[in-house]
Amino acid sequence: MRLYVTPASPWVRRVRVTILELGIEDRFEFVQTRWPHSWGTQTVASLAPDFLAATPVARIPALVAPGVTLTDSNAICDYLNAEFGAFRLLAREGTARWQALATIAIASGIIEAQIMRRAELLRGEKERSTDFIAKMRDRQFRCFAALEAHLPAFGGTFDLAQITTAVACGYDEWRYGPDWRNAAPKLAAWYDSVADRPSLKATAPAETPQH
Amino acid sequence: MRLYVTPASPWVRRVRVTILELGIEDRFEFVQTRWPHSWGTQTVASLAPDFLAATPVARIPALVAPGVTLTDSNAICDYLNAEFGAFRLLAREGTARWQALATIAIASGIIEAQIMRRAELLRGEKERSTDFIAKMRDRQFRCFAALEAHLPAFGGTFDLAQITTAVACGYDEWRYGPDWRNAAPKLAAWYDSVADRPSLKATAPAETPQH
Repeated sequence: MRLYVTPASPWVRRVRVTILELGIEDRFEFVQTRWPHSWGTQTVASLAPDFLAATPVARIPALVAPGVTLTDSNAICDYLNAEFGAFRLLAREGTARWQALATIAIASGIIEAQIMRRAELLRGEKERSTDFIAKMRDRQFRCFAALEAHLPAFGGTFDLAQITTAVACGYDEWRYGPDWRNAAPKLAAWYDSVADRPSLKATAPAETPQH
Repeated sequence: MRLYVTPASPWVRRVRVTILELGIEDRFEFVQTRWPHSWGTQTVASLAPDFLAATPVARIPALVAPGVTLTDSNAICDYLNAEFGAFRLLAREGTARWQALATIAIASGIIEAQIMRRAELLRGEKERSTDFIAKMRDRQFRCFAALEAHLPAFGGTFDLAQITTAVACGYDEWRYGPDWRNAAPKLAAWYDSVADRPSLKATAPAETPQH
């Protein structure tokens, strides 16, 4: 299978951590993509033809697997968990699945806000909205605080709910600093307790190559 | 169950169509939410406390069901399809599920672009990026064109892949006019063939109440 990646994207990281937790990394070719900082506002003209053929959305991650091409991390994780994980990282159905999806939806809300805030920060000063940046920060902090209520349901498996939550914490820490910890001190303590997992260490965020 | 809605949101429409296709509308209380046009850039201060308690993301749709609260349309549709639809609108696993998720990911890419373009158009002129609007339009048209290749896999059931695709078509037509049809004439013909379904007629987009 071929997975298009960058080292900065939390959506990519979520998939890479899932792959490492399932122990199936040898089945993948990881293809690096490059993004000029103009991606925040402009259609990127320099994307490789094979990447554009894989995803009309033109976003990472994208997975090209036998018989199917999937262009968002939710679909990719659902697929990998079912086909290669025997539903170990996300229950196939029932209360356990819905509780996990509830957590994942809030953590995904954080990740979306993180990316939109990043895109806003990459705008030229004239088109940059400080209101919008504050709106995204508000959402991030509200969602981090809300995730504290989900901690008691976290079980012994580092599953998709925990993976997505840890990736949201890790991106905030990397890109925006430790402020999020004030919004969610118990969550921060949980994050510190899992941050040394090999799957997280191996996928620590780094700046995306621009050229 | 309680579902927070607006008449403009394609994400809400996707859930409402799913509910109508499953024939379970009598199980829901639909709660109207109101959004001043400043939602594009500002944290909305006037949201009702029960809505904010239901979703820290502060976006619609949000579903409050017995034992679980779900704050995005993917999670909500997955839940309704499993618990009330016996997996009729989306296969539980296997190739049929992955093919449907591939279509849904691209249609969702369109819907995200539609909403971000709308938020951009609601900005004050000074902070509005014509580049960003063009980037979103490019993505919408690329994805509509790509969906034409998925049409042969559309089966006899108006399932989640078809629902999400129809909602993406309907929103573009309503908000941005018929231009999308030029990008995807075969898809437009398909859309015209399903547009009279009662579930789509009953959920035609309309402007969201601001106050």
